[in-house]
Amino acid sequence: MIELSLIGIGTGSPGHLTREGVAAMELADLILIPAKGEDKSDLGELREMLCHKLLRRPPPLARFEMPQRDSRQGYRQGVEDWHDAIALRWEEVIREYRAQRPALLVWGDPSLYDSTLRIAERVGRRLPLNLRVVPGITAVQALCAAHRIPMNAVAEPVQITTGRQLRENGWPEGVRRVVVMLDGECSFQTLPENGTRIWWGAFLGMAEQMLIAGDLSEAGPRILAARAAARAAHGWIMDIYLLERPD
Amino acid sequence: MIELSLIGIGTGSPGHLTREGVAAMELADLILIPAKGEDKSDLGELREMLCHKLLRRPPPLARFEMPQRDSRQGYRQGVEDWHDAIALRWEEVIREYRAQRPALLVWGDPSLYDSTLRIAERVGRRLPLNLRVVPGITAVQALCAAHRIPMNAVAEPVQITTGRQLRENGWPEGVRRVVVMLDGECSFQTLPENGTRIWWGAFLGMAEQMLIAGDLSEAGPRILAARAAARAAHGWIMDIYLLERPD
Repeated sequence: MIELSLIGIGTGSPGHLTREGVAAMELADLILIPAKGEDKSDLGELREMLCHKLLRRPPPLARFEMPQRDSRQGYRQGVEDWHDAIALRWEEVIREYRAQRPALLVWGDPSLYDSTLRIAERVGRRLPLNLRVVPGITAVQALCAAHRIPMNAVAEPVQITTGRQLRENGWPEGVRRVVVMLDGECSFQTLPENGTRIWWGAFLGMAEQMLIAGDLSEAGPRILAARAAARAAHGWIMDIYLLERPD
Repeated sequence: MIELSLIGIGTGSPGHLTREGVAAMELADLILIPAKGEDKSDLGELREMLCHKLLRRPPPLARFEMPQRDSRQGYRQGVEDWHDAIALRWEEVIREYRAQRPALLVWGDPSLYDSTLRIAERVGRRLPLNLRVVPGITAVQALCAAHRIPMNAVAEPVQITTGRQLRENGWPEGVRRVVVMLDGECSFQTLPENGTRIWWGAFLGMAEQMLIAGDLSEAGPRILAARAAARAAHGWIMDIYLLERPD
């Protein structure tokens, strides 16, 4: 059996690593580092830096090129095919290194808007796999901690959704608080501004961390400007926000 | 200024502590340990054990008795008054120890169904406070990691709610996946069983960890029985579950 570990590493701060996460990294005999060409958003260098900073004797770090996603057959089919292709690459690298305890460092937590669990399941159909998941700090948590706010109002539900969902379906039914992830298009712009509050953050936990909060009508434009400038300066950006609608 | 740290410690496993969390504990000159008489669910002993296990020189651990919650003025007013009373206790203990860097160890993460942020805000109205929040692994994440499942379906939203909400309002609109917390009454019993799946966990991350998953019609009764037995054996229980409704 191959023991494959998916290790949540938080959002870029070495302080986000859990004791269990570091121990799982120590135990690995191979760490797979996905790369997307020149795209800095692959965070490959940050993952390598974490290995060198946290581990006394890092195992081999196998940087491998990620397949491209192809949406010509539709979004969902494109994602399915892409996961198949990534699973094949994982399998090749694991076989090449004859790894018995390979690990992947997962941005945030493997359970939230992340595809590694689904890819690992595919690998498990072709290799004898024992899967281990180590939870990590998500961007949601890093956002709330940085703003020093709770995610939910007292005794109320909260929804976690995507920018696409917010654009296409509007404000979700039955909740006053919504966390929006995977939103490259600042989809909060599609909402009415009637007293909605926003808490936004980018590069959470990293040296570049940015925070903006306020009424959507005045904070929204500030976020658009700050986000565009930061993205131009760094070549990439990762951000998230929490919205609260008035009663 | 008094630097008050709210440190998310995860759900009982020393492995859940982040590097940042341990560093914040090391920095504290007082750790407040809330106690509820003989009630084991206060987890006071576990918090003290963590301090002794993780810190070379633990600061004073101030165990203080928690005020009782009184619901006679209604649920919400009862919670407000209770938070006021707890804030007074924190303030007394901080003053008594002349602490400059007091800390609280928060079960899970301070942002999710936890009242310490709201209590700290009250303390900040009476003491010059600089608040620091350190995120921690939530029961949601420990549940998903233990079951090795994602919290959300691909590109879909997910709702986090309470047992009370589920009982009173039924299945939330617009979501196929729901995480239920703070449910002492196994409120999944109030749902129709038409193909709904459940992933349940108790004492997540601890030696006593229990996991049950399956179709609600057959897993539901197993959960009821296992939960009642475990609660009787341990004197308390803390559990959580994820539900998925068919398409």
